[in-house]
Amino acid sequence: MKEQARKAIRLCRELALCTEEQGKITRTFLSPPMKNVHRALSDWMGDAGMRTWVDAVGNLHGILPAARTSAPRLLIGSHLDTVPDAGAFDGVLGVVLGILLAESFQGWRQELGIEVIGFSDEEGVRFGTPFIGSRALVGSLHEADLDLRDRQNRSLRDAIRDFGLDTSGLKHARLAGGAIGYLELHIEQGPVLESLDYPLGIVNALAGQSRLDLTFGGKANHAGTTPMNMRRDAMAGAAEWILEVEREAASQEGLVATVGRIEVAPNATNAIPGSVSASLDVRHAADSLRREHVDQLVSAARAIARRRGLELTCRRQLDLPATRMDATMCKRLEQAVQAMGYPVHRMTSGAGHDAMIMAPHVPSTMLFLRSPGGVSHSREESVLVDDVEAALAVGLEFLQVLEVQYA
Amino acid sequence: MKEQARKAIRLCRELALCTEEQGKITRTFLSPPMKNVHRALSDWMGDAGMRTWVDAVGNLHGILPAARTSAPRLLIGSHLDTVPDAGAFDGVLGVVLGILLAESFQGWRQELGIEVIGFSDEEGVRFGTPFIGSRALVGSLHEADLDLRDRQNRSLRDAIRDFGLDTSGLKHARLAGGAIGYLELHIEQGPVLESLDYPLGIVNALAGQSRLDLTFGGKANHAGTTPMNMRRDAMAGAAEWILEVEREAASQEGLVATVGRIEVAPNATNAIPGSVSASLDVRHAADSLRREHVDQLVSAARAIARRRGLELTCRRQLDLPATRMDATMCKRLEQAVQAMGYPVHRMTSGAGHDAMIMAPHVPSTMLFLRSPGGVSHSREESVLVDDVEAALAVGLEFLQVLEVQYA
Repeated sequence: MKEQARKAIRLCRELALCTEEQGKITRTFLSPPMKNVHRALSDWMGDAGMRTWVDAVGNLHGILPAARTSAPRLLIGSHLDTVPDAGAFDGVLGVVLGILLAESFQGWRQELGIEVIGFSDEEGVRFGTPFIGSRALVGSLHEADLDLRDRQNRSLRDAIRDFGLDTSGLKHARLAGGAIGYLELHIEQGPVLESLDYPLGIVNALAGQSRLDLTFGGKANHAGTTPMNMRRDAMAGAAEWILEVEREAASQEGLVATVGRIEVAPNATNAIPGSVSASLDVRHAADSLRREHVDQLVSAARAIARRRGLELTCRRQLDLPATRMDATMCKRLEQAVQAMGYPVHRMTSGAGHDAMIMAPHVPSTMLFLRSPGGVSHSREESVLVDDVEAALAVGLEFLQVLEVQYA
Repeated sequence: MKEQARKAIRLCRELALCTEEQGKITRTFLSPPMKNVHRALSDWMGDAGMRTWVDAVGNLHGILPAARTSAPRLLIGSHLDTVPDAGAFDGVLGVVLGILLAESFQGWRQELGIEVIGFSDEEGVRFGTPFIGSRALVGSLHEADLDLRDRQNRSLRDAIRDFGLDTSGLKHARLAGGAIGYLELHIEQGPVLESLDYPLGIVNALAGQSRLDLTFGGKANHAGTTPMNMRRDAMAGAAEWILEVEREAASQEGLVATVGRIEVAPNATNAIPGSVSASLDVRHAADSLRREHVDQLVSAARAIARRRGLELTCRRQLDLPATRMDATMCKRLEQAVQAMGYPVHRMTSGAGHDAMIMAPHVPSTMLFLRSPGGVSHSREESVLVDDVEAALAVGLEFLQVLEVQYA
């Protein structure tokens, strides 16, 4: 199976050449290079004995049918689009592994069909809204979404037509019946598995997420003529709060909280900051706990602002609940991991994935592959051949167990 | 003298109409509206019995001669340029008050000449280098400076020619002999006099200034997938240091330290900051003390970076020594303040002024007028008519005392 693993990595590197930007990997929703990705993947799917088609939002499907038409069908999928200047494995590795699993599965009892799906958009780069591909599949992409516009002022409807697809087929993009589960293989995009020296992780849940914008308002003033005790320095207030965010998050197992974006005004060397806007991103698998900590951090900001004579405005931008993976599917996956002799590690995904959209509709599970250096969304992104081999072995075992169950 | 004070304010408001930007007060070095300022001020100088000329870098001079050609001469000056979107009093008020003082002085014994100077550049907006006017006067503007370029790619030499002046006359711009002192009247641009409820302040010294750029280098990473204990968050490190800057400055009388400019990369809501650059501006009247505190703050940054696994780079951009005003001139000014019945307050200027350039060449002193709300470099900048009246009264008393001394 090492050969298969090497092949998977080679195929991902080949697909990475399909890019909008020379010298970088950038492939947004239905951009021209996506055509080449579809062509290459369809060929490989065909070689694996699969029937292929592209649906109305550009998701690529490949079906390996079971012997009986009425047989159950497992979905294996991930996304084909990338962030700008991306790595070669985020998303696409899960599709390539799906094809290789189908290929290896071919010779078996054919009690279970396999449908591999390459979603056209997960990152949301082109239209500023993520999950266009999987949302179309589960029916949560709406007619109004087709009016979204990209930076070139092309609408989503235009983009679909430009790619040679037909928006009238949107309703046919809906998932057909008979799917008994959804499996997504994906790189971790974080440092946890590497720090444990584990190749694989079973995803229990995708963390819920809060996003807020807080603005500390003080008084811009001359840095030379304003004594320290007469200042209302918005940056000093924001700094105090940023440390509080760090402290609060570190105090709670599994909680992450990040101040990633800062805008200072007037942002001049010789001016006391009059205004500082800061983003807050908070994630945890338990929604009530996450919301408690968010409230606590907003209270802390208010207390700091009050003590320093600053104004505080707070806008809550996003409150996305956590998504639990299916307990039975996760258990099956865990058994497969154990059967293949790998250490079992259950974890929460801090990042969003297509499985988040699929889970309310199909029993879903995810298998993470270790990310060397925890690096992703970067040209340094990589995977280890041994880890890919482990994922293929576990995936095949998982298919076998499912087939037995549904036979 | 209240009438004179009202006139001064009115004249400043009139000059504020000479601007490069409609609806704002913006008047940079030798910009077209400076011509109108020269015209108006020359007329008022003429009415006050003064002989006027514009030197090779566009400083406007007006001389009220003494009876004897060999008599001593006091310089009274400030600058005529502004920052973008400025107030109506920063700089120009000192020139207008100089003219009104000369006018009131006319009828006396004429033992002392008065030369009022309106400097063409103090703010340094157009060519990114301040004090072009006063540096030409004291001979520290050099031939090479004429090659400086503005944003329209016009050189300083071009700007001088465009204004109808001749760079070959630069050496003649040098201050003629016989000047026994330099007096600058200027708004405080800070909140100190207002907080004390004093109209005037005598400036002992202009603070020395350090400017540094510090960059905290961490690791940019996914805000959702990187646990708190595996982060190297450049912003959290910078925040800890910003609070240290505030604490250190507050612990030392007369010290101000400001982090005014922050640049974060990648500066995205869902990314842990990988790099944060922060400016540091530190000012104090005592150079050795200022440098000690700067070293202390750099050490603190290094310690924070080391503890957090961050890299620190530190560039020292500026180390400008403090400038002491002349003790005798300040004493005379203090006596005049006392004689006119105003409270005496000696202070350090945290901002730079033309007096900084003049002081090494001519015994210099400065009189600050209270800034309501501490506001400057803003269209809300103002002065109180009573404070202007006080400045005029003190200025006249100062001239009288000097005349007696030099008679």
